[in-house]
Amino acid sequence: MTTGLPTLYYRADCPFCWKVRIALAELNISYKGTETVLGEKHSSVARLSPKGSVPVLVDSTTVIWESSVIVEYLHDQSGISQLLPDTAAERSRVRLLQSYSDSVIGPALRGLVFEKRAKPSAEWDWEIIDNSETAWQACQAQLNDWISEGAFPSSFGAAHCALLPRFGIAEYYDSPIPSSFTALTNWYRETSTRESYTSTYPYGFR
Amino acid sequence: MTTGLPTLYYRADCPFCWKVRIALAELNISYKGTETVLGEKHSSVARLSPKGSVPVLVDSTTVIWESSVIVEYLHDQSGISQLLPDTAAERSRVRLLQSYSDSVIGPALRGLVFEKRAKPSAEWDWEIIDNSETAWQACQAQLNDWISEGAFPSSFGAAHCALLPRFGIAEYYDSPIPSSFTALTNWYRETSTRESYTSTYPYGFR
Repeated sequence: MTTGLPTLYYRADCPFCWKVRIALAELNISYKGTETVLGEKHSSVARLSPKGSVPVLVDSTTVIWESSVIVEYLHDQSGISQLLPDTAAERSRVRLLQSYSDSVIGPALRGLVFEKRAKPSAEWDWEIIDNSETAWQACQAQLNDWISEGAFPSSFGAAHCALLPRFGIAEYYDSPIPSSFTALTNWYRETSTRESYTSTYPYGFR
Repeated sequence: MTTGLPTLYYRADCPFCWKVRIALAELNISYKGTETVLGEKHSSVARLSPKGSVPVLVDSTTVIWESSVIVEYLHDQSGISQLLPDTAAERSRVRLLQSYSDSVIGPALRGLVFEKRAKPSAEWDWEIIDNSETAWQACQAQLNDWISEGAFPSSFGAAHCALLPRFGIAEYYDSPIPSSFTALTNWYRETSTRESYTSTYPYGFR
């Protein structure tokens, strides 16, 4: 019996799934992708994850249902990956950026994305969208400061895997980076050409 | 100039802070603890953390404002710690349990703890408490299953650091483990004697 390729249950425009897909592309790991549909309960996902949500990675007998744990696993498995840097201090910086993307940017963008994705424009609740827009601007100001202060990792890794999808999604829903955030604009312009990002872009050709 | 001991900003009964305090105790790391008060904004914490919440660890020039990233940092720094096991698969299991504690058990217990902590008993909203109790029972059923299936790590580590405070807090707020969850009851009975847990217990002598 062969264990075969790992399987990733994902939704193409889910930022947590996209993060994992960039990490897999960075490491040149082949996998079987099983795409799920927004709002539809997938029976395997419901069985494999106590949260019932994607992404879920199944690698032989190992089942991982949380995106940041999947990224750590891919790093640990590869042995040589640059998803995380070498020193404890630098690693903590990358992990904090990933956490900031997951737990601060995610909730900030939610209102904007969920309104626009779920409803025709005539039914959008502009108060929800405006509040979300304000929170997202505050996140971008923070990121712009960190980049300007040199607090961003210089090499592509787990933080990039987590952050890039947020910008791709915001841009798609008409909230691109304001040009006043020069450092952030330049950072995104440079990093968004990365093949692991463009090849996993969920909204058609970028 | 000496860099001195690391500083931990914490609140004694915060489960995320307690997690970090157990990890520090496990590794015999001396630190300067700065206790914060529930509901009062601490100026250093506001400055150091983009979330403005504890725990925050400051180790020389490294500032870490997220409990699971602090635990990873302590593990990486020590070089020899058993907070995380050696193999990628086993690590992912420990990290998933920590994530389950942080992102599933935490929200489940919130209603129960927040109601009882914030108000005199005459003012408790029993609907909130009952819903929280139900969610917490479901978590305990899941944990009991995992332990019964042998899916729990055998040695004390990051998952224990995260989970034990949840039980300590629930017990304090009159929601101890139901005796029908035999595996979980035994697990807690055995692990809660650990000195790193008893020495950091926030509610007086345990």
